[in-house]
Amino acid sequence: MIRYPTKKNTYETKKQSVANRGQTLESMIDESNLFYLAQGMAVVHKKPTPIQIVKVDYPSRQAAKITEAYYKTPSTTDYNGVYQGYAIDFDVKETRSKTSFPLKNIPAHQIHHLSAVKAQGGVAFLIIAFTLLDEYYLLPFEVLAFFIERAKTGRQSMTYDECVAYAINIKPSFRPTLPYLKAVDDYLKIQKKSFKP
Amino acid sequence: MIRYPTKKNTYETKKQSVANRGQTLESMIDESNLFYLAQGMAVVHKKPTPIQIVKVDYPSRQAAKITEAYYKTPSTTDYNGVYQGYAIDFDVKETRSKTSFPLKNIPAHQIHHLSAVKAQGGVAFLIIAFTLLDEYYLLPFEVLAFFIERAKTGRQSMTYDECVAYAINIKPSFRPTLPYLKAVDDYLKIQKKSFKP
Repeated sequence: MIRYPTKKNTYETKKQSVANRGQTLESMIDESNLFYLAQGMAVVHKKPTPIQIVKVDYPSRQAAKITEAYYKTPSTTDYNGVYQGYAIDFDVKETRSKTSFPLKNIPAHQIHHLSAVKAQGGVAFLIIAFTLLDEYYLLPFEVLAFFIERAKTGRQSMTYDECVAYAINIKPSFRPTLPYLKAVDDYLKIQKKSFKP
Repeated sequence: MIRYPTKKNTYETKKQSVANRGQTLESMIDESNLFYLAQGMAVVHKKPTPIQIVKVDYPSRQAAKITEAYYKTPSTTDYNGVYQGYAIDFDVKETRSKTSFPLKNIPAHQIHHLSAVKAQGGVAFLIIAFTLLDEYYLLPFEVLAFFIERAKTGRQSMTYDECVAYAINIKPSFRPTLPYLKAVDDYLKIQKKSFKP
């Protein structure tokens, strides 16, 4: 997610600091991943933003300076890695709404990618934040897929109550900042149950 | 891998074309991944090169033009994804030697990362090419680790014969260009056997 600095953003950041200590969801995940990596609990990294490089200068032998480049559209989600033998893959989404999670901010390529990961036996999900409520959820891909299907003829969002009912709550913490692997554990337990007769 | 165009590179590319149709190992892997993705056989992507963006111009509302940026050192390997429930993670290495695979071109951060992936139950390996021989191998991380350990006091490379003996051969093909998932299958079979009493 690229955030260009604008007056509106600056204002939002100040208001957010009351709710979740001024951290974006992304920085909370990055911090948590560093913690998980250091503890040997998981290996999850954020993918770099894809850039199309056009021109590079070499002012010295050591440093190559890129002087013309453009953002490319990614074809995957931002995060993936491995956790206890599971391939996990996810993206993060924030909303300032207190009543619903809008689906229009999830690009088609991410839905397509998460679906492909799920089909290969990976663990695919979104981590969503209601920033003004300081509430965080792991939204399994199959739940997301259900509501995206509904959005074709019905409402363009999940209600807050639907998120509470069908997503898995993540309680912010100190170390890690956002212990989302606990929610992955809960999700894997539910999955195993639903596969057993 | 960033290849700056030099006279030496240009010459190498020409000579390579005799052996492996002028394709770099990386482009063979990228092609194979596209094929595997289209066939629903695996979801493996190359990670973008990490770039530190310093300055961005906005000549129009649509296009953001990056005017100052620098290459950052990656902390992982170039490729990862999911294949039949397995988290796979690897990097690719080419050598023009016909007699040995040098270990000095494998940066410490890649060894560290592959080791962490393996510890989490992922499938970690290198794909190596003897470009002048048009021969390709999947080198499991634990094999690589053994020879890196040896390099601390002994020779700085694996001999060609050691690669033949301890790595898994990948035969180039038409579709996909380099069917490395077959080698992953072989590797998983060996692993399963060695875990059974």
